[in-house]
Amino acid sequence: MHSGSAPLNRLSLNQITTERRTLQETVEACARSEIQWLGTWRHKIQHDPASSARMIHDAGLRVSSLCRGGFFPAATAAERKKRIDDNLRAIDEAAALGTDVLVLVCGPAPDRDLAAAREMVSHGIGEIVSHAKECGVRLGIEPLHPMFAAERSVVVTLAQANEIAQQFAPENVGVVVDVFHVWWDPQVYSEIQRAGTRIVGFHVSDWIVPLPDLLMGRGLMGQGVIEIRELRAAVEDAGYHGPIEVEIFNENVWNSPLNELLGEIKRGYLESV
Amino acid sequence: MHSGSAPLNRLSLNQITTERRTLQETVEACARSEIQWLGTWRHKIQHDPASSARMIHDAGLRVSSLCRGGFFPAATAAERKKRIDDNLRAIDEAAALGTDVLVLVCGPAPDRDLAAAREMVSHGIGEIVSHAKECGVRLGIEPLHPMFAAERSVVVTLAQANEIAQQFAPENVGVVVDVFHVWWDPQVYSEIQRAGTRIVGFHVSDWIVPLPDLLMGRGLMGQGVIEIRELRAAVEDAGYHGPIEVEIFNENVWNSPLNELLGEIKRGYLESV
Repeated sequence: MHSGSAPLNRLSLNQITTERRTLQETVEACARSEIQWLGTWRHKIQHDPASSARMIHDAGLRVSSLCRGGFFPAATAAERKKRIDDNLRAIDEAAALGTDVLVLVCGPAPDRDLAAAREMVSHGIGEIVSHAKECGVRLGIEPLHPMFAAERSVVVTLAQANEIAQQFAPENVGVVVDVFHVWWDPQVYSEIQRAGTRIVGFHVSDWIVPLPDLLMGRGLMGQGVIEIRELRAAVEDAGYHGPIEVEIFNENVWNSPLNELLGEIKRGYLESV
Repeated sequence: MHSGSAPLNRLSLNQITTERRTLQETVEACARSEIQWLGTWRHKIQHDPASSARMIHDAGLRVSSLCRGGFFPAATAAERKKRIDDNLRAIDEAAALGTDVLVLVCGPAPDRDLAAAREMVSHGIGEIVSHAKECGVRLGIEPLHPMFAAERSVVVTLAQANEIAQQFAPENVGVVVDVFHVWWDPQVYSEIQRAGTRIVGFHVSDWIVPLPDLLMGRGLMGQGVIEIRELRAAVEDAGYHGPIEVEIFNENVWNSPLNELLGEIKRGYLESV
């Protein structure tokens, strides 16, 4: 049933994978490599979303998502308000780029109280959802691996992401499934099924053994132990047939020659996704 | 209610915290520091469990547990049988040491198939439980942090540990709650309650931010972000009032002068556990 490769027209290059390159270099390399989608990052497009959008679209690419909003929890109401304002700007940027998905990395707790921080996440999403709806942007809650609980996200399982998303309409708030973050979870397949058409993104990379680094140790698909193809089958069974973003935090990958890297990504995608 | 320190007579030094010392050095230092419990490791006592037991008991210490059995999943039936035989020996060693708890670190998958490996864990425990019962040893399934899923344990949540334990009688199979491994889990408090009197051990350390290393980056209690006291209150509410093991994998800790280290451990225990 799902034994074949994913089609190349669903491959999206998440821009963090070419972190050392400009948007223009990345866009040109994708066009040369016939990669049709780009997953953008705010720090790469923020200075001028409209001209970034033109550059991407003129090269024949589409934008699969914008990374990232989120980081809602903070120690004071004033700081939480600033975070919400920043998320409203991120929604505007997503709309300007012509993508309908803003990825949310929800942020760590400002102290030891995870439960309170998790409430701040739900509250923060509640504050931005109507603007997202007006802009035609879906918010995608991305659970991060539990090893990032202290520094990047108090949302650490797909179950949690689903629970928060279900507080809102499915056309406005969904979830992003990144195999690196969820592969270990005994509930991952049942939670993918539960997410259903709330899945707004599917990200791939691999878990190298031993893991070289918490943040910067991701591998290309096929280099590690994640059952990527089974997870793709599960998200497709749940109803997701959109772009598949290759998102790799790894200094060696970042320093690779661009054309070679995109060739390796296409091979890893065809063989292991 | 639970705002006070844990009593010092429940403090146990897990022997990995003094990995660079001999059993004799550790035992003598504990006796000098009036630490009454020792959590032993097999590689430190295995050459002669009976004389190790005498050394520990003659110094006035008791053994809170033996680390570790487990590592059940393997690629072949012959290798799985070898692992089971090794667990039977670990049970004998626990009995010889006079402890009623053998901690199980369940092991990684031999391939990418986590579900199959998880079945091997349940099966392996089933193969050793009657011997454990005969020896008066309870098996304590310790869920490890999900960042160890690929290398050390396919059991990564307390929910999973509880589910496996519940396949057996509570007097024979329980769970070990280590704050470093479970603190991030949105279900940790409900699963501690569910575990109830199946809790056979409580381990403490702390999650330093940023984490210096996956394996070797643990901090002393109070140096990180874990709500240790709340978790202790929860395991006590669930019915656990046994030894509290301080278990710290950290090269700097291992290289500290022994008396100073035990003093710091007692301070961290009184202030943050």
